[in-house]
Amino acid sequence: MPPLIHQAATDIHASRWFNSNEELSLKSLLGRVVVVHAFQMLCPGCVSHGIPQALKTHTLFSSDEVVTIGLHSVFEHHEAMNDISLAAFLHEYRVDFPVAVDQQRTGSPIPHTMHAWGLQGTPSLIIIDREGIIRLNHFGRLDDMFVGKLISQLSAGQAPLKPSSPAKTNKPENCDDKGCRI
Amino acid sequence: MPPLIHQAATDIHASRWFNSNEELSLKSLLGRVVVVHAFQMLCPGCVSHGIPQALKTHTLFSSDEVVTIGLHSVFEHHEAMNDISLAAFLHEYRVDFPVAVDQQRTGSPIPHTMHAWGLQGTPSLIIIDREGIIRLNHFGRLDDMFVGKLISQLSAGQAPLKPSSPAKTNKPENCDDKGCRI
Amino acid sequence: MPPLIHQAATDIHASRWFNSNEELSLKSLLGRVVVVHAFQMLCPGCVSHGIPQALKTHTLFSSDEVVTIGLHSVFEHHEAMNDISLAAFLHEYRVDFPVAVDQQRTGSPIPHTMHAWGLQGTPSLIIIDREGIIRLNHFGRLDDMFVGKLISQLSAGQAPLKPSSPAKTNKPENCDDKGCRI
Amino acid sequence: MPPLIHQAATDIHASRWFNSNEELSLKSLLGRVVVVHAFQMLCPGCVSHGIPQALKTHTLFSSDEVVTIGLHSVFEHHEAMNDISLAAFLHEYRVDFPVAVDQQRTGSPIPHTMHAWGLQGTPSLIIIDREGIIRLNHFGRLDDMFVGKLISQLSAGQAPLKPSSPAKTNKPENCDDKGCRI
Repeated sequence: MPPLIHQAATDIHASRWFNSNEELSLKSLLGRVVVVHAFQMLCPGCVSHGIPQALKTHTLFSSDEVVTIGLHSVFEHHEAMNDISLAAFLHEYRVDFPVAVDQQRTGSPIPHTMHAWGLQGTPSLIIIDREGIIRLNHFGRLDDMFVGKLISQLSAGQAPLKPSSPAKTNKPENCDDKGCRI
Repeated sequence: MPPLIHQAATDIHASRWFNSNEELSLKSLLGRVVVVHAFQMLCPGCVSHGIPQALKTHTLFSSDEVVTIGLHSVFEHHEAMNDISLAAFLHEYRVDFPVAVDQQRTGSPIPHTMHAWGLQGTPSLIIIDREGIIRLNHFGRLDDMFVGKLISQLSAGQAPLKPSSPAKTNKPENCDDKGCRI
Repeated sequence: MPPLIHQAATDIHASRWFNSNEELSLKSLLGRVVVVHAFQMLCPGCVSHGIPQALKTHTLFSSDEVVTIGLHSVFEHHEAMNDISLAAFLHEYRVDFPVAVDQQRTGSPIPHTMHAWGLQGTPSLIIIDREGIIRLNHFGRLDDMFVGKLISQLSAGQAPLKPSSPAKTNKPENCDDKGCRI
Repeated sequence: MPPLIHQAATDIHASRWFNSNEELSLKSLLGRVVVVHAFQMLCPGCVSHGIPQALKTHTLFSSDEVVTIGLHSVFEHHEAMNDISLAAFLHEYRVDFPVAVDQQRTGSPIPHTMHAWGLQGTPSLIIIDREGIIRLNHFGRLDDMFVGKLISQLSAGQAPLKPSSPAKTNKPENCDDKGCRI
């Protein structure tokens, strides 16, 4: 499991918001945990893993305590992933949480928020605690149970930078995912 | 998601323990959350869902705060699921958390703890809070993120009997799991 | 498993082809089995099931005997699923078999080939035998093993309209996908 | 995909048969394709992959042409995987095709048929053509579509030792199973 961090969060720079009547700012969300799923609508890992996980965090946690936000951080195929395409994508995948379109920057394919937060790619999961500090900034897949635990801990005001006991690991055997060898 | 309950927990009646040098009692575990996965080694849903989830809860949470226990509650094919078979099963599936063999009762196929707790079948997930009260008693499958959230909340001393806001649901569309209809 | 049919196949009407230097016609493919995966790039079931299955049929069967073709049959969100978006989609999902863009019709959202073949939606799998006859026209998901069997049979010149023996079914038990009930 | 082979098949040595009124012999099955799934009831890969695939081959193919057989080749935990346990396992997993218990040998943990056929472990898939020749002898997992194709080809009397054209492969990209890297 990825270690927790302590990184100041500049605000989201969005050229547009979907599924929200207002522009959300991290400042206005202080006191709540903010779960940001950075994605691209044509990134296979985002579609198969990131979006379903974001739909779960949005459904499972009360919006009084935890806010799930999508961040459409396009760094390739910009023309193919424009706002019209994104609107259709959000409709087809039934994404009903607020989604910010990460603002493009002149002279760089990497959009503004993605650059400022130092994201490595998509999908990335960024979790911000109630004080507005980034505690997780993870590129790739993360297990649902770990995510459920971390959000709950931060929501309860717990913010362990280190696990309280060494991780347990199962040792290898002659039976693995492939089968049992003689 | 299943509602939380408030049910007194009689202690586990075990004819034998695996992966533990001592008999565990709920009394000695007061102050920690206890996660009991009731299973049968030849129950398909237990093998595909319950055991993997139990391995996750055991790995993810510190044993200072959360204890994962397997409960082998055999109510059919008793001869086929004896202690010798169970030992091999636990080895092959790399189960390294404590497992209690639920004590058989004379004149009934339903073993002792299963009967006392009113379990409906296997797999069942029983989660006991730090005060020794059963808060969840669920037959069947449960989502990993929900389980991660609930254990974390109980571990933090939070015990919501009701969710703090109405659940969100996605409305049906013309595109579903099967495809998109014209 | 869906029954086989015997339906004349009008040719594919494409406004454009991807991954092919020439326009493919069913006439020029006579003598080979043609496997057509009709999809929309923003249809969830197509992305999770149809495209991966089409990649498998393309990889598994020799192009001397079996030709896999994608058919982008857009009947909704036309603006969002244009050729620029489709090109990026095919790149991201590594689709390397020929893909025809189903020609739009004036006055109807349903494109030309989709209408002519009577497709019900996306994903649809259409399998055409060596004589150019549609033998399968199925909306939704189909098991990989069934698809592998049917393509092989048609490729060998076998075309059973009926299975040669009654299908076997497993009878229900007290243990199902959810678990084992007492 | 694994290459096809041409290996003489000694007959199955079974101490007992389940789901069959008679002992099956390969000689009596000449003219039909025989699909043998070698497994151990406590082997995780067998339970999650091999048994479901065997249930599919049994359901999908007519028994006039293809016979699916389970081979319980126990080479470890012999006491735990005895006939009583196996009977319960077959019932719980709804295995309704014939299953042979591979005969134990004095002085070796490896049972008779497993030894004679040179199996590497469990699960193994052994496919025997209509002339009684082993054409596939594979340890581990195999894709369902490949299995469906191979059985169909052998059932049609086709027995390609080599694929008729070079295999196609998708080249790596910046987007992989983990996500899309910048």
